[in-house]
Amino acid sequence: MEFSEWYSEILEKAGIYDVRYPIKGCGIYLPYGFKIRKYTFEIIRNLLDKSGHEEVLFPLLIPENLLAKEGEHIKGFEDEVYWVTHGGKNPLDVKLALRPTSETAIYYMMKLWVKVHTDLPIKIYQIVNTFRYETKHTRPLIRLREIMTFKEAHTAHSTKEEAENQIKEAISIYKKFFDTLGIPYLISKRPEWDKFPGAEYTVAFDTIFPDGRAMQIATVHNLGQNFSRTFEIIFETPTGDKDYAYQTCYGISDRVIASIIAIHGDEKGLILPPIVAPIQIVIVPLIFKEQKDLVLNKAEEIYKRLKDKYRVYIDNRDIRPGRKFNDWEIKGVPLRIEIGPKDIENKKITLFRRDTMEKFQVDESQLENVIEKTLNNIMENIKNISWKKFENFITIMDSLDINKIKEILSQRKGIILIPFNEEIYNEKLEEKVEATILGETEYKGNKYIAIAKTY
Amino acid sequence: MEFSEWYSEILEKAGIYDVRYPIKGCGIYLPYGFKIRKYTFEIIRNLLDKSGHEEVLFPLLIPENLLAKEGEHIKGFEDEVYWVTHGGKNPLDVKLALRPTSETAIYYMMKLWVKVHTDLPIKIYQIVNTFRYETKHTRPLIRLREIMTFKEAHTAHSTKEEAENQIKEAISIYKKFFDTLGIPYLISKRPEWDKFPGAEYTVAFDTIFPDGRAMQIATVHNLGQNFSRTFEIIFETPTGDKDYAYQTCYGISDRVIASIIAIHGDEKGLILPPIVAPIQIVIVPLIFKEQKDLVLNKAEEIYKRLKDKYRVYIDNRDIRPGRKFNDWEIKGVPLRIEIGPKDIENKKITLFRRDTMEKFQVDESQLENVIEKTLNNIMENIKNISWKKFENFITIMDSLDINKIKEILSQRKGIILIPFNEEIYNEKLEEKVEATILGETEYKGNKYIAIAKTY
Repeated sequence: MEFSEWYSEILEKAGIYDVRYPIKGCGIYLPYGFKIRKYTFEIIRNLLDKSGHEEVLFPLLIPENLLAKEGEHIKGFEDEVYWVTHGGKNPLDVKLALRPTSETAIYYMMKLWVKVHTDLPIKIYQIVNTFRYETKHTRPLIRLREIMTFKEAHTAHSTKEEAENQIKEAISIYKKFFDTLGIPYLISKRPEWDKFPGAEYTVAFDTIFPDGRAMQIATVHNLGQNFSRTFEIIFETPTGDKDYAYQTCYGISDRVIASIIAIHGDEKGLILPPIVAPIQIVIVPLIFKEQKDLVLNKAEEIYKRLKDKYRVYIDNRDIRPGRKFNDWEIKGVPLRIEIGPKDIENKKITLFRRDTMEKFQVDESQLENVIEKTLNNIMENIKNISWKKFENFITIMDSLDINKIKEILSQRKGIILIPFNEEIYNEKLEEKVEATILGETEYKGNKYIAIAKTY
Repeated sequence: MEFSEWYSEILEKAGIYDVRYPIKGCGIYLPYGFKIRKYTFEIIRNLLDKSGHEEVLFPLLIPENLLAKEGEHIKGFEDEVYWVTHGGKNPLDVKLALRPTSETAIYYMMKLWVKVHTDLPIKIYQIVNTFRYETKHTRPLIRLREIMTFKEAHTAHSTKEEAENQIKEAISIYKKFFDTLGIPYLISKRPEWDKFPGAEYTVAFDTIFPDGRAMQIATVHNLGQNFSRTFEIIFETPTGDKDYAYQTCYGISDRVIASIIAIHGDEKGLILPPIVAPIQIVIVPLIFKEQKDLVLNKAEEIYKRLKDKYRVYIDNRDIRPGRKFNDWEIKGVPLRIEIGPKDIENKKITLFRRDTMEKFQVDESQLENVIEKTLNNIMENIKNISWKKFENFITIMDSLDINKIKEILSQRKGIILIPFNEEIYNEKLEEKVEATILGETEYKGNKYIAIAKTY
């Protein structure tokens, strides 16, 4: 099955996201999808909180004059901003933008918060919806008009070095985040013509989807003093001078949910990393008439043994076990416990791993140990597999060969690495290879230009 | 100090909410305020999840034709809806509303989800931002143009009785919620002319603010089949007939945060219920030159003893203890631990309760026990105090006395209860008393009409 068809189907079948809302590029996070989203963004929340970031919440609406204040920035967004022009039946005095991103709203306030170097650093983040009037083809959780989940962090510092270090911290946080989810990535410095509007430079994380196309999943921007000059975020230095704050910002979006689905899933359905699985262990009682109570009681007993440590669910529906198995395989539940009369007699428990589709028995007394090991093992295994697939998608070339690049990108795609060379590193190269230059990157110790067909 | 002045000051001084955003009725949840919001809404999340509600996320934008579908509903909102009319530089084909509330968005989808009675009940909720173009005076967290936090639950059922029971469940959930926070309330059935647009009837929770005015803090609506007829939410009954779903919805907003602040606070600042306090215990080391290490080590030791169970913070700032005390009293931290060399010598620890402003000593060995009891005690105490204040604001009258009512409402205000009488229960009464009729209510076993000046 073609990837995009598989992807649409799984969103529906697994109960992740409903695309049938009557606005293009807007949809609904269904209960199961919402839980995956919740556990996923909880990971990044913890990583940010632990590293001294504080969560805040800014308004959605940005007055036109604020959004337009930074010249480069507004140029980058003006074609895709939604405008609120009326309140009730009255035209508004000032048009209000639905935030495409929140630099301008946040930096307006930072000016009010920053007076002296001891007010710095500021490290804040929010998890909010943002809006882009996409004219391109929209795709659920990948290219949305309402980006339902945008984690944006914004920092301000008193020295350039500190801002540079913040970029490093952001990259290291995102690495941990994607590693926790087993999502492989290539980090590259975006070319000048593709950096964030208003930034000094942009570092991006790209992964590769099963159809071989690269997907940007995180960006980290060093804003230098561009915005702080425009928004007059001025502080008194320890020596009594005045300086503009040095700023960074970095974000991830719903695309991480799309990646969890796309990268780990197989033809049967989802394969969820245990850490974000809404149900980590499903218990399916195998009920035969005579021993119904015996089996249900055992299922309940096992549930109680596990429920404080894991998200466990007993599937007591009155349908055949085969259908239950199928349902939970589609939903990507990492571990299934089957409980039947024979196993009970032998003090055994049957386990089933979604990732390898293996069934095996354990002694009842060993259950907790085996489960812990198995869940860790599942995570390790799906991470290894996804990185292997990712590396298979990487083509390293000795030199620039336009025809070869075009051939690869038209067939198996992936990311192509050509040796870095300042002279060829320009927009014309994009035209020649009919693909996107992701940027300059280091791969196994060497410096390359990364090229790919992108989403 | 006048209440509204106190309220504005405390929002700023305690770091809750910054009103200086350049759009009227829009502001910023600052880190400390954001944490109070997070812990508060976590309580309602848990209550809803435990009672079989599932969290979802719907789009912000609602097409004009969808919002306008239910006649009564749109009439209730049309004057205060924000309209998106442009994407980039292009006018949109269909105007898009920023949700003032999500009935129309959600019920459009429910039609697609419901086919047969076994698809019911549906019990979902979301916590989102909603928008009202308020022409009245806006107030932070009380009357906002961007309501930053709106928890809206929506249910659909196969029988009228089940929907009625859902109303009871919703009321009981909200009671538990406000009881957990120690926020007193009067529950009343809103009069016909003040029910939710499109509902059969509305039940509301009102509390009373320190200035004596009533504040609506929750509403529960029985929608009957009004919306399901409009949106064609039709299901096959067990007997093979067709019927329209019976629906309810219920919501709470940022006003609960405003209430926590207003109801419990005193002239010194916030008094936070321990369950939502971002810092439950602050440790202040009393440092004297010679014994600095001794004191800091002890502070660290106490911190480690408590940190797994409570949200604890050591205030190591290099300022005088008096200033630290003051800061944490403003921020409403329930319990303060002071650690000085003399206490250490005597194996004593000094505790300070924010609610009673009492200082007392405990044996170091008894610390955990005393803290647990004290925090429970604080919650009980602030709940008792707030209910007493609330009851002092209630005036029960034997009969309708317009002049008396006007006199009370112009002085100490509060809620006035007059014996329920169908004949006087109409909009004219509102004009006569120059106040709002909250609705019909039971109070200590008798039926009344509740009247108040409201926010």
